[in-house]
Amino acid sequence: MPRYKLTIEYDGTKYYGWQRQDSLPTISQSIEIAINKFSGENPETFASGRTDAGVHAFAQVAHFDLISDKFSDFQITKAINFYLKNEDIIILSCEEVPIEFNARFSAIKRYYQYQILQRSSPSVIDKNRVWHIRKELDISLMQKAADLLIGKHDFSSFRAAECQAKSPIKTIESIHIDKKDDKIIIGISARSFLHHMVRNIVGTLKLIGHKEMTLEKFQEGFVAKNRELMGPTAPACGLYFMKVDY
Amino acid sequence: MPRYKLTIEYDGTKYYGWQRQDSLPTISQSIEIAINKFSGENPETFASGRTDAGVHAFAQVAHFDLISDKFSDFQITKAINFYLKNEDIIILSCEEVPIEFNARFSAIKRYYQYQILQRSSPSVIDKNRVWHIRKELDISLMQKAADLLIGKHDFSSFRAAECQAKSPIKTIESIHIDKKDDKIIIGISARSFLHHMVRNIVGTLKLIGHKEMTLEKFQEGFVAKNRELMGPTAPACGLYFMKVDY
Repeated sequence: MPRYKLTIEYDGTKYYGWQRQDSLPTISQSIEIAINKFSGENPETFASGRTDAGVHAFAQVAHFDLISDKFSDFQITKAINFYLKNEDIIILSCEEVPIEFNARFSAIKRYYQYQILQRSSPSVIDKNRVWHIRKELDISLMQKAADLLIGKHDFSSFRAAECQAKSPIKTIESIHIDKKDDKIIIGISARSFLHHMVRNIVGTLKLIGHKEMTLEKFQEGFVAKNRELMGPTAPACGLYFMKVDY
Repeated sequence: MPRYKLTIEYDGTKYYGWQRQDSLPTISQSIEIAINKFSGENPETFASGRTDAGVHAFAQVAHFDLISDKFSDFQITKAINFYLKNEDIIILSCEEVPIEFNARFSAIKRYYQYQILQRSSPSVIDKNRVWHIRKELDISLMQKAADLLIGKHDFSSFRAAECQAKSPIKTIESIHIDKKDDKIIIGISARSFLHHMVRNIVGTLKLIGHKEMTLEKFQEGFVAKNRELMGPTAPACGLYFMKVDY
């Protein structure tokens, strides 16, 4: 019973996120239907991180098992992509892995990127792919706030109410904020994240960048472990799951 | 009778290019309909360069005249964008200009960018926005060939049969080829270009990058002023009109 690791790119705009839901189109459902069509089997796919509705991925990773061992990695990639041809999802690679490999639990580091477009007009070329913000953001202030989050902390202040993680303790490895022309790119990495954690951090950094929250209030809210003291959740469309290390 | 300069972004995928055509959706038609809806007038819009079907623009420039002088630049931007809300076109700015200003003839430099995605799988996130090429390209060889085109030359070898320019003599200011991750970006600037000139250059540089044409053959074909000796026209979807200087 071979296990396969898939690396997947998707534009999340038209999907209700990764996780299968009754009667709503999701990324995992589309992939599972494609696997069924070529193999006749009905495996479940398990992702390294379940992305929300509208979130994109350049290299999501998922695993699944087949009963049959007659398909090569290359055949599986080709076959799934054939049945995904009308979807905004593509398999970049498929690799047979040991049965101990688990896309979620074997991950040692995940990388997200958040893209903000800061200018007066929204973009048609980047429609559904950036958070459009008109007012100028002070990215050096945002970086100072972000630096306070590096390391092992209780991230309750950035945790969604519906988060199912056992513990709010997470370790952020890095947050880098860069500006190129009118785009602000926030890169963030950690072993794992709480539900909505990246979008809640970005939504709060935006307040800092607009000087609607001081660094002192940011730090106070962070250590108070109180979600209500921090900023709103940034829109899903600006978020990209970049890659995962195993 | 005021004249206005529009700066325009568009995703060209679903349009039959800039220029108005009977019963086919084009960029200029959509903008002219929007101008008509708010002003009741029927001006023609003139672009700095007519882009082909499928070509995108980050900052195309066009001018048009109104009889009425009652609209401010800001009102015109807002009004056109209101009527473009279901289109893949947005006005970035509108500015009243002297009647001598002409988007096409006043231009002193135009900038194009061509994007190639070089990897095994096509992209869903950049669908219709890059030329997907599987086999590795030698970009240092491509840059060497590109350098032979810099300056004032007869570009008949890169000219479309249907080109209406009076002279095939053009002056290329710069061609820069850069690679970032799996994307190859070709930036090219000149006062003006022949029809399909950028796409014909890129299609030929691709042969150089794949070592299917030598630098010697490239140079021979260039000076022979013979379109048939050069490579095919690169796809429209990878081409971006970046900006124009006046």
